[in-house]
Amino acid sequence: MSYIAPVKEMLFAMQELADLERVAALPGFEDAGPDSAQAVLDEAARFNANVIAPLNVEGDVNPSSFKDGIVTATPGFKEAFSQFVNGGWQGVVHPAEYGGQGLPKLIATPCVEMLNAANLSLALCPVLTDGAIEALLIAGSQAQKERYVPKLISGEWTGTMNLTEPQAGSDLALVRTRAEPIGDGNYHIFGTKIFISWGEHDMAGNIVHLVLARLPGAPEGVKGLSLFIVPKFVVNEDGSLGARNDVHCVSIEHKLGIKASPTAVLQFGDHGGAIGYRVGEANRGLEYMFIMMNAARFGVGVQGIAVADRAYQRAVAYAKDRVQGRAVDGSSKAPLSIIKHPDVRRMLATMRALTEGARALAYVAAAHSDIGHRHTDASVRADHQAIYEYLVPVVKGWSTELANEVASLGVQVHGGMGYIEETGAAQHLRDARILAIYEGTTAIQANDLVGRKTLRDGGAVVKVLLAKIDETLAALWEHKSYESSAAFQALHKRLGAGRESLANVVDYVLTHAKDDPNAVFAGSVAYLKLAGIVLSGWQFARALLVATDKRNDDPSFYDAKVATAHCFATQILPLATALEAAIVGAHDGNEGALALTDDQF
Amino acid sequence: MSYIAPVKEMLFAMQELADLERVAALPGFEDAGPDSAQAVLDEAARFNANVIAPLNVEGDVNPSSFKDGIVTATPGFKEAFSQFVNGGWQGVVHPAEYGGQGLPKLIATPCVEMLNAANLSLALCPVLTDGAIEALLIAGSQAQKERYVPKLISGEWTGTMNLTEPQAGSDLALVRTRAEPIGDGNYHIFGTKIFISWGEHDMAGNIVHLVLARLPGAPEGVKGLSLFIVPKFVVNEDGSLGARNDVHCVSIEHKLGIKASPTAVLQFGDHGGAIGYRVGEANRGLEYMFIMMNAARFGVGVQGIAVADRAYQRAVAYAKDRVQGRAVDGSSKAPLSIIKHPDVRRMLATMRALTEGARALAYVAAAHSDIGHRHTDASVRADHQAIYEYLVPVVKGWSTELANEVASLGVQVHGGMGYIEETGAAQHLRDARILAIYEGTTAIQANDLVGRKTLRDGGAVVKVLLAKIDETLAALWEHKSYESSAAFQALHKRLGAGRESLANVVDYVLTHAKDDPNAVFAGSVAYLKLAGIVLSGWQFARALLVATDKRNDDPSFYDAKVATAHCFATQILPLATALEAAIVGAHDGNEGALALTDDQF
Repeated sequence: MSYIAPVKEMLFAMQELADLERVAALPGFEDAGPDSAQAVLDEAARFNANVIAPLNVEGDVNPSSFKDGIVTATPGFKEAFSQFVNGGWQGVVHPAEYGGQGLPKLIATPCVEMLNAANLSLALCPVLTDGAIEALLIAGSQAQKERYVPKLISGEWTGTMNLTEPQAGSDLALVRTRAEPIGDGNYHIFGTKIFISWGEHDMAGNIVHLVLARLPGAPEGVKGLSLFIVPKFVVNEDGSLGARNDVHCVSIEHKLGIKASPTAVLQFGDHGGAIGYRVGEANRGLEYMFIMMNAARFGVGVQGIAVADRAYQRAVAYAKDRVQGRAVDGSSKAPLSIIKHPDVRRMLATMRALTEGARALAYVAAAHSDIGHRHTDASVRADHQAIYEYLVPVVKGWSTELANEVASLGVQVHGGMGYIEETGAAQHLRDARILAIYEGTTAIQANDLVGRKTLRDGGAVVKVLLAKIDETLAALWEHKSYESSAAFQALHKRLGAGRESLANVVDYVLTHAKDDPNAVFAGSVAYLKLAGIVLSGWQFARALLVATDKRNDDPSFYDAKVATAHCFATQILPLATALEAAIVGAHDGNEGALALTDDQF
Repeated sequence: MSYIAPVKEMLFAMQELADLERVAALPGFEDAGPDSAQAVLDEAARFNANVIAPLNVEGDVNPSSFKDGIVTATPGFKEAFSQFVNGGWQGVVHPAEYGGQGLPKLIATPCVEMLNAANLSLALCPVLTDGAIEALLIAGSQAQKERYVPKLISGEWTGTMNLTEPQAGSDLALVRTRAEPIGDGNYHIFGTKIFISWGEHDMAGNIVHLVLARLPGAPEGVKGLSLFIVPKFVVNEDGSLGARNDVHCVSIEHKLGIKASPTAVLQFGDHGGAIGYRVGEANRGLEYMFIMMNAARFGVGVQGIAVADRAYQRAVAYAKDRVQGRAVDGSSKAPLSIIKHPDVRRMLATMRALTEGARALAYVAAAHSDIGHRHTDASVRADHQAIYEYLVPVVKGWSTELANEVASLGVQVHGGMGYIEETGAAQHLRDARILAIYEGTTAIQANDLVGRKTLRDGGAVVKVLLAKIDETLAALWEHKSYESSAAFQALHKRLGAGRESLANVVDYVLTHAKDDPNAVFAGSVAYLKLAGIVLSGWQFARALLVATDKRNDDPSFYDAKVATAHCFATQILPLATALEAAIVGAHDGNEGALALTDDQF
């Protein structure tokens, strides 16, 4: 089955929750109002359904292949990617002065979601190119921007990020790749990089590798890393392609999923040295790479939402079609579509609630990023950027963890058929499983959430969010529907409890980070999930208010939103209390999560 | 890496929690005391480590293959299976009069666990043969028992269960396979069965298919099903093999995991009719098949524990070996084994706690089965059998759901390497995913738990278990270590809360099954998980008491047990409250889990 983008649901999140009109009032976004958004989303929906989605299974069955240093993408990918770039889709969010469309991240995000829902393997290539563009725009020289960015935005070339080495995964301090000055201001790069997504392929004319490496005499650790552009083909002064650079793919990985996305081992400098051009200042490479990583992390969070939605759509279609079993309430003696069975319905509603909650949160984050970049008032920009940066690890970590859960429920809805590869549900499970790992595992996101995003500002940003949640709780309580609506009551009760749990955990983190860092970091993933659940629940509370007030404009859509919010309240939000207990429990003299010694494992 | 059976841990659960000495005091089990158990487990551990485990990866890379109706097992499987049967391992639990060893289920269960941990795909064949043996012993005629059971116990032949058809999965009322009398008291079978594990293969001389089919004029629905023996080769009067029967494999499935286990589509009667022999009375087939299914369901629960332990062992080995990152508490500037990092340690401890808790519960269930079969007092037998039957869906459902979670954590511990197939962690995730589906999905187990195991006796059995939990809670409270032990306090608090949640949910189920069956069944899987968590937590509380009292006999083992119990208390037991909320929440006017209408999905 194909993929139908939930355009109406996306526009709801954009307009009612992420305040598209406020974003469209920012300088430079004058043409990015609801009508433009609808037009872009409709076109993206058509393109992804017709061109990209049909290749998803093909990519799984017929992965990218490697032979003699050449990687050939799945049949059909090159042509589809060509249509993608010809449609201008790589440039949606990027500046018009370099050939992009200059649209808000809030509009680009549903486009990214659609592309990833249609085909996670293929979409990963543009997600990484987006990151390379952002890094070059911020850290590159004017000449570098002019040479590389337009071609990346047009999609003629693609971008990669080269961090990982066999001994340096999450720990970039261990990076050994070397950069030796060759006298003309440029460098020869030597080393091995692994896990390079789309590190070699035949879909584009050139590949712009952004590579972390060490200059001679650089400090040890992450403070000795510099960032280099290493193009697959050297680019001549006139912009034409020159010699093949000394960076070569020596193998690609055999993976659990996203099989069409070639994961390359790249060898730099085996034939004399790969020409590299330094980006920005020496030894600030990690800082620049973080620009790319943060863009990519948000993008990977959106990948999680995307694959979750695709898995949900497939499961719903199967559950409506498959006839099996009678009604548990005796209302029918004839076999029923399994969507009628309470447990199947619970699974589908859970899948939907998790996905919609994560989507709402990601879109809200995107709007904060837009305001953080474009608002005329610097202090407003700073406030919104800070919220965005708090949300990035939550969107990345929570959306990808739930993608595993949703994809697994999708298999379960299919029963035995879900275990048969031809059904397609299993591919989503396999594909989704990388998302909580790459661009920083959930633990790495959680470290970021604890360290840079909570401790560094003494919890200031998260307390702003808690105060906003309180406003929403008050609005629920004061609403005329509160007394008569089980959804209002459930959400008020469970979001209120979740908000307390989140506040308690933040206090715990702030209080104990110094005296018991091991306990705090043992609870960091639980803190991230707790934040994801409570902040998504908050979006559902906001959605509930809108859906109730506007109900008569579109009863079937808004009633479904109320029902989904109610499901989130009863099925997901109660986990907040358990997560709080797991975190605080880890502090009981470290005998909870951390009591076992090395030998005891 | 290979698999090292946790013999000491298994013996602890058998002796201290499942009361092996009481089982060994039952008639016929006089030789089944701790020394025998240790000897059998040691030998099983050696055999599975040396012969079976090394074939696990091979089975994944080189699955069973199908050509022209012939299924060829993975290279090496036939020889390994031959060693398995020559060692007498198929017969461990079966009666000596038919060639078995007649050992208690409590001793057979760790043997089954080891075989499955070593190689889930291969082990599935004997698990199903066990079920066929049990069904024939209970429902077969004396002649049928004599003809088939000794060969199944010796392992010369294997057994299968044939229930599913394309239109009849969980819903056996829809079975269409026909059985036509042929005048000599036997039948011709016609129809198509799918998802038949080890339904065709080359590891044994014959395959005894147990097949559900309908006699002419049989009632519709499940009350019109009869059970038939359909051997691959007809068995002559003298026990020798006769003609090839008209049951043929027409294809095998391409699956997410357990790839070495051929999942056959079997065609019965395309060439005139497959000879079938009726087992027991007409139209009681489902009842007999349930004997086989219940044995197989318990076995599948043990499969969950097995694959979880294998995933845990692999993750621990990797975490000790992989060096990456510095200490979060600043205690070391040099990179550390990742097992030192709090989040990795939390993941490993969680994997271990889930696995040990499920193992303890399964072994306790096995002992109840032994007492239920062998005790001299009929009322004692009935009481224990009732507890066993309550525990079967819990062991099956909870152990397999947690296997998914543990195997996924195993991948996560490996980071990016976990996504690369050669690492082996991903195979466990793929293999495990079938367990919550086959032999009845978790929802089917949960329906059984609600319907047959809770409503039918008005909650009598679960209330017995709740009373036993109260005794353990009192023992914790009264223990001299309570005041000084964080583990005692945490377990007392969290198990106490979990016990309340379970009691509340049982009351809820009993109260609302009639007036709101949809809400009760929407909460059935949550009830099953809640029961799994609380009953496992109870085993940890019992283990904590033993480990504390015996601590000085073996400090390193018992200290680890205390630490694992503490981890279960803080990381797992708090989920009980969330599950209770999800169940009761579903009852809020059905607007929680069930509010969305069909069209709204």
